[in-house]
Amino acid sequence: MSIKEQLIQKVNNKTKPLGSLGILEDIAIQIGEIQQTLSPELKDPVILVFAGDHGLTEENVSFFPKEVTFQMVMNFLNGGAAINVFCKQNNIDIKVIDAGVDYDFKNMPGLIHSKVGFCTKNMLKEPAMSYEECILAMKKGATLVQNEFNNQSNVIGFGEMGIGNTSAAALLMSKFTKQEIENCVGPGTGLDAKGVNHKTQVLKKVAKKYKNLETPLDILSAMGGFEIAMMTGAMLEAAKLKMTLLIDGFIATSALLSAQALNPEIVKNCIFCHQSMEPGHQEMLKHFGVKAILNNGLRLGEGTGAALAYPLILAAVNFLNEMASFDDAGVSNA
Amino acid sequence: MSIKEQLIQKVNNKTKPLGSLGILEDIAIQIGEIQQTLSPELKDPVILVFAGDHGLTEENVSFFPKEVTFQMVMNFLNGGAAINVFCKQNNIDIKVIDAGVDYDFKNMPGLIHSKVGFCTKNMLKEPAMSYEECILAMKKGATLVQNEFNNQSNVIGFGEMGIGNTSAAALLMSKFTKQEIENCVGPGTGLDAKGVNHKTQVLKKVAKKYKNLETPLDILSAMGGFEIAMMTGAMLEAAKLKMTLLIDGFIATSALLSAQALNPEIVKNCIFCHQSMEPGHQEMLKHFGVKAILNNGLRLGEGTGAALAYPLILAAVNFLNEMASFDDAGVSNA
Repeated sequence: MSIKEQLIQKVNNKTKPLGSLGILEDIAIQIGEIQQTLSPELKDPVILVFAGDHGLTEENVSFFPKEVTFQMVMNFLNGGAAINVFCKQNNIDIKVIDAGVDYDFKNMPGLIHSKVGFCTKNMLKEPAMSYEECILAMKKGATLVQNEFNNQSNVIGFGEMGIGNTSAAALLMSKFTKQEIENCVGPGTGLDAKGVNHKTQVLKKVAKKYKNLETPLDILSAMGGFEIAMMTGAMLEAAKLKMTLLIDGFIATSALLSAQALNPEIVKNCIFCHQSMEPGHQEMLKHFGVKAILNNGLRLGEGTGAALAYPLILAAVNFLNEMASFDDAGVSNA
Repeated sequence: MSIKEQLIQKVNNKTKPLGSLGILEDIAIQIGEIQQTLSPELKDPVILVFAGDHGLTEENVSFFPKEVTFQMVMNFLNGGAAINVFCKQNNIDIKVIDAGVDYDFKNMPGLIHSKVGFCTKNMLKEPAMSYEECILAMKKGATLVQNEFNNQSNVIGFGEMGIGNTSAAALLMSKFTKQEIENCVGPGTGLDAKGVNHKTQVLKKVAKKYKNLETPLDILSAMGGFEIAMMTGAMLEAAKLKMTLLIDGFIATSALLSAQALNPEIVKNCIFCHQSMEPGHQEMLKHFGVKAILNNGLRLGEGTGAALAYPLILAAVNFLNEMASFDDAGVSNA
């Protein structure tokens, strides 16, 4: 029997009606397959929160001003953001990374200094990143994941903060899933209908400018962001190291689209934690052919969907390891 | 400003886009209202698991044999069931109650001995319980909740185990939500189409037999079960004590339907934890006009949906208490 068949048998012998733990059964089997064991463990969970600024904010595509990226990084370091609260509650380590925030943090303690630049370029005028910057961001992301792996972690989530990054994510989505910009754009942190309309017009111009780009790295360089590219590199490395990847919302999934273009197998290691209210996210999940664990109207980013879904993922592993079988418990299996 | 308005203001001043925590914001506000404070706390969460047997199993309405109720109680006491694993993970206390199992547990340690009878009557032939038995079960349920309240708990979930109890729940649903039996019946622990058809025919006969019953207590006596009646009394008491009630799946929600018929205000204290795969549950949730937190294909009972949703409920309270406000964190509010 394959490991998958053995896992299915183990799940089906637990003292419960067949299939009655729903998606938790799928997750237990998936993690068993990732780890190639009938008794998987989730060790030292960590969420990396990548922060970066976007030159495209010059075009008024976001509800909040660009300074909020820096301000929220300070909030993360002070433990006051949603992701801090949820990680603390669920015993998840959190690492905050300056991937490319438009602020000189100097030697700020608590922050991982991994800056590729102070802000991406205005992609309406020129590519957001040079090819070299994009590669550098990805390499830095890979190194960060290697560090977590070396610290014994085998489950890793990816969060982000970057005013303007729903624009970059929408453009990547449009390119990688071959959808019209209109299907990819949403209100982000809170644009009204007029704002969404303006954002759509701007993004259509950007998409037109780069319509001939074809390779994943050219696309990611032109329309991504420092935090998205770093996350892409981090995801690719995590899959290579056979870790379990916790995929958050719209931005994180746009990084996964980029990663998938470079390694289609990556999806086997991914658990889709929640479906964001940002309208494009539902279409992204359709692209991957998956249903997310949570669907609770969240659209906050930071990795909060991953942090909130984590106890359910842990519950999947725990029932597989800890529940009695029909034989063990002397329960009649009909 | 009312406490609700103050809670909304507090939520909206947190460092996050407006409304971006979705259902967690609603839960935070609801619990604040229940406790009449801007800083609610969840203290000593507990799940009561009520077990009881059903005389109607004589009519072959269930996939598993009746003995499984007793066997699963033993599994609960040994810590081997799904509810044990999930409660342990999420720091929820669990109490297992013999409400009416067809087994003499004698002085079995770890079990709460609250037996009303060894098994309900076959309701196809006579009412499942006498009126007196039903009242006794409800009173015992209320006492159990008072004990938890006296132990400082202010949040309480309700689970159950009882082979045959989806039949009782379907009948209560049909009566309290005024729906045809066909819309209330489902496979329970695993009936195939033929089995569901037989179950439907049996339940239609039962429904016809008691079609003239009108008061909630007459309905609950005739078509409920010891564990369902005890749960109903427990829920009513928990709401009276201003506790937060965690509502699980199909059976627990049928008890809530009974409780609502006796106290329509109870719903304000209820958090609907998950939507069961048992088809009638979706209609029950519609009756209450709510969307459950989780929708993950679960149909196990025992209170597992409540145990699994609990970290999300705790996260709602935690973000309300622990997240920084825009002012505190010096973050620009657009």
